[in-house]
Amino acid sequence: MAGVKSATAYNGPMANESNNKWDGIIVGASLATLDADSGYGGIEDGAMAWRGGCIAWVGRRRDLPGAPEELAREVVEGDGWITPGLVDCHTHLVFAGDRAREFEMRLQGASYEDIARAGGGILSTVRAVREVDEDELLRQSLPRALALLADGATTLEIKSGYGLDFDNERKMLRVACRIGEQLGVTVRTTYLAAHALPPEFAGRADAYIDEVVAWLPRLHDEGLVDAVDAFCEGIGFDPAQTRRVFDAARALGLPVKLHADQLSDLGGAGLVAEFGGLSADHVEHTSADSVRAMAASGAVAVLLPGAFHVLRETTLPPLDAFREHGVPMALATDCNPGTSPLQSMRQAMQLACTHFRLTPEEALRGATVHAAKALGLDDRGVLRVGQRADFVQWAIRHPSELGYWLGGRLARAVYAGGQRHLRFD
Amino acid sequence: MAGVKSATAYNGPMANESNNKWDGIIVGASLATLDADSGYGGIEDGAMAWRGGCIAWVGRRRDLPGAPEELAREVVEGDGWITPGLVDCHTHLVFAGDRAREFEMRLQGASYEDIARAGGGILSTVRAVREVDEDELLRQSLPRALALLADGATTLEIKSGYGLDFDNERKMLRVACRIGEQLGVTVRTTYLAAHALPPEFAGRADAYIDEVVAWLPRLHDEGLVDAVDAFCEGIGFDPAQTRRVFDAARALGLPVKLHADQLSDLGGAGLVAEFGGLSADHVEHTSADSVRAMAASGAVAVLLPGAFHVLRETTLPPLDAFREHGVPMALATDCNPGTSPLQSMRQAMQLACTHFRLTPEEALRGATVHAAKALGLDDRGVLRVGQRADFVQWAIRHPSELGYWLGGRLARAVYAGGQRHLRFD
Ligand SMILES: [Zn+2]
Ligand SMILES: [Zn+2]
Repeated sequence: MAGVKSATAYNGPMANESNNKWDGIIVGASLATLDADSGYGGIEDGAMAWRGGCIAWVGRRRDLPGAPEELAREVVEGDGWITPGLVDCHTHLVFAGDRAREFEMRLQGASYEDIARAGGGILSTVRAVREVDEDELLRQSLPRALALLADGATTLEIKSGYGLDFDNERKMLRVACRIGEQLGVTVRTTYLAAHALPPEFAGRADAYIDEVVAWLPRLHDEGLVDAVDAFCEGIGFDPAQTRRVFDAARALGLPVKLHADQLSDLGGAGLVAEFGGLSADHVEHTSADSVRAMAASGAVAVLLPGAFHVLRETTLPPLDAFREHGVPMALATDCNPGTSPLQSMRQAMQLACTHFRLTPEEALRGATVHAAKALGLDDRGVLRVGQRADFVQWAIRHPSELGYWLGGRLARAVYAGGQRHLRFD
Repeated sequence: MAGVKSATAYNGPMANESNNKWDGIIVGASLATLDADSGYGGIEDGAMAWRGGCIAWVGRRRDLPGAPEELAREVVEGDGWITPGLVDCHTHLVFAGDRAREFEMRLQGASYEDIARAGGGILSTVRAVREVDEDELLRQSLPRALALLADGATTLEIKSGYGLDFDNERKMLRVACRIGEQLGVTVRTTYLAAHALPPEFAGRADAYIDEVVAWLPRLHDEGLVDAVDAFCEGIGFDPAQTRRVFDAARALGLPVKLHADQLSDLGGAGLVAEFGGLSADHVEHTSADSVRAMAASGAVAVLLPGAFHVLRETTLPPLDAFREHGVPMALATDCNPGTSPLQSMRQAMQLACTHFRLTPEEALRGATVHAAKALGLDDRGVLRVGQRADFVQWAIRHPSELGYWLGGRLARAVYAGGQRHLRFD
């Protein structure tokens, strides 16, 4: 099939090298490799093998260099379609409690002031996170990660940002790492202490940023930080404060990303570009200048349709400008208790198709290869020899179904690093 | 707890009547009985027992007339919350194929004309349904019913309407019945031959209605029809044709319901009221007069937020008028391949909260007791002694979460008629 670069690459055993066999091979499904400049990179009646956690062969079954059972220790009979494992590149899924009662109050007519008076809002989540110990925080957060995995996500980004003091930010990042260990999926941690102003710093945002900047190297020393983020917004931190956080990240060689231009244009996406950052996220109000700067710097635009849906926003991100300038568009759940209680990348894809008019193919690229790029990962997101063997077998007739259904049980098996993590029959 | 009528009703065994024990009891969870005029009818640290498929006791655990293990043959330790089983009162889930490619074409910029030329639209589903045999139609439809069940639905309404000839309408209704038998849940069948004009009757809608009217008694004789429906719309059938279908239903003593006022006000909801029908469904354009007529006749307004979402409609149903006049509002998935590829009642609830600003409590009533009323069923939808033992145990802290999360795995166990059908750990 045109554009599928790996179909002819041969990285497999001779048929008689039994101890050099592939670890596994799946046959009988079609493959959406995404390994082409456009289209799904589809291979009908495909075969894909893996060894040592990486893809060792991908192509048409009839081009296999032998019988599957001679080539691999385990032969899986698949059907439907196989895609790369989904990558959720923006989540706040480590938290305690929930904000469903606040959601209910809003629908009963309460104002944001009423809710704040009743102890709601982001600071209620901060309180809840501070109150629980690390094990309890893990216990409450794990089902959300498992739900994401069950619907096809094999790589999760998880942010801190509900601790807002050293110990509690550290606790959140430790829980994020433990989720990855426990589920056997890749977790990338992002330090987001500059998410909101904690009550003990009310009126002293610059003093709080001093602390945020001081905590970062200590957490980085513990291996808890893969990237650094901030909430740059009228109701968050201003560009000068954001710049100080980014400078601290740069001093440690850590990549940056940003909650940028969600409610207003503060030039956040441009700031990401200036720092050579990984991604600008939300980006509903990003200017044409910032789009050009992102294109020049190689930053990814991370679209978060869950928050757009729940907040009933009406200003769309500059999608055509992103397309025109070749800015990759990624999708993520933004899973969080306040504005995006979304626990499925497929549902994020459906919401992006409906609200943003993304095509299902754009949504799938946004949920795989572009999302991987938003995390600085180039070892996943397409089905290609040498990439991580992260993939999902779906009970579908065509990949467009992944952006089409709301609900449903489509994932049949989810593999991360060649290990089958879930199987539904 | 105020308003919970059944807490003191005693329909249980003496502690020493071992062969008169309850079949099962669940303790340790809170109960959202909905058995009150407003609020969730909540009972903390509740207990609920069942015998012979019906609820035999419901109330506070401490009010139980003995130790659970002496009262019931099986004691289930629950946690979280228990609600009545959800009722999906409007689905088209029996179909073959899907229309994901058409969804994709639309997002790629194709017009409805382009899609019609490419063989898309409802008639493509009619072709697909006619092409498969009954077993294959069951095989393709069953996963959708199972997905609904897995997310808490224990009663499903299923419509015909993609066969559009006698044999294929019959095939669809038979598949609907087989789904109920196979999954052990209640299925209510609705005859919707007046869904679209089949190609062989192009330009002869009245002649087609002659056939629709003639097929009904034959299918009713086979026990395949619980209710009769039509698509009354500019692009469907007109009120006079709808009236003929309703007359045929009335002659057989069958209740009617209607796809009414979705895209324009043809007075469909008023027609339902005139016939004493069960429900008017969609109702985005229903007039104030029709709302009053519905209130007087006792018809239910069935809201279908999935189609509203996918079609990006902007005209809301007259929600305040329904509230003011006491018209019960039910929710359903409208699960269908064209306008509502929605396989979860919880997601329908979330969409109703977001798009229609229903409160989570209204959404839960709409998904249970009001949906049961839309099917003419008064034996389910609340947790009360004597009702069917259809209930769901959810891993939630508060019932408002059922309208809050998008995605996620919240159902822990689903019981229909006192039988546990699914359990997730
Ligand atoms: Zn976020
Ligand atoms: Zn319908």
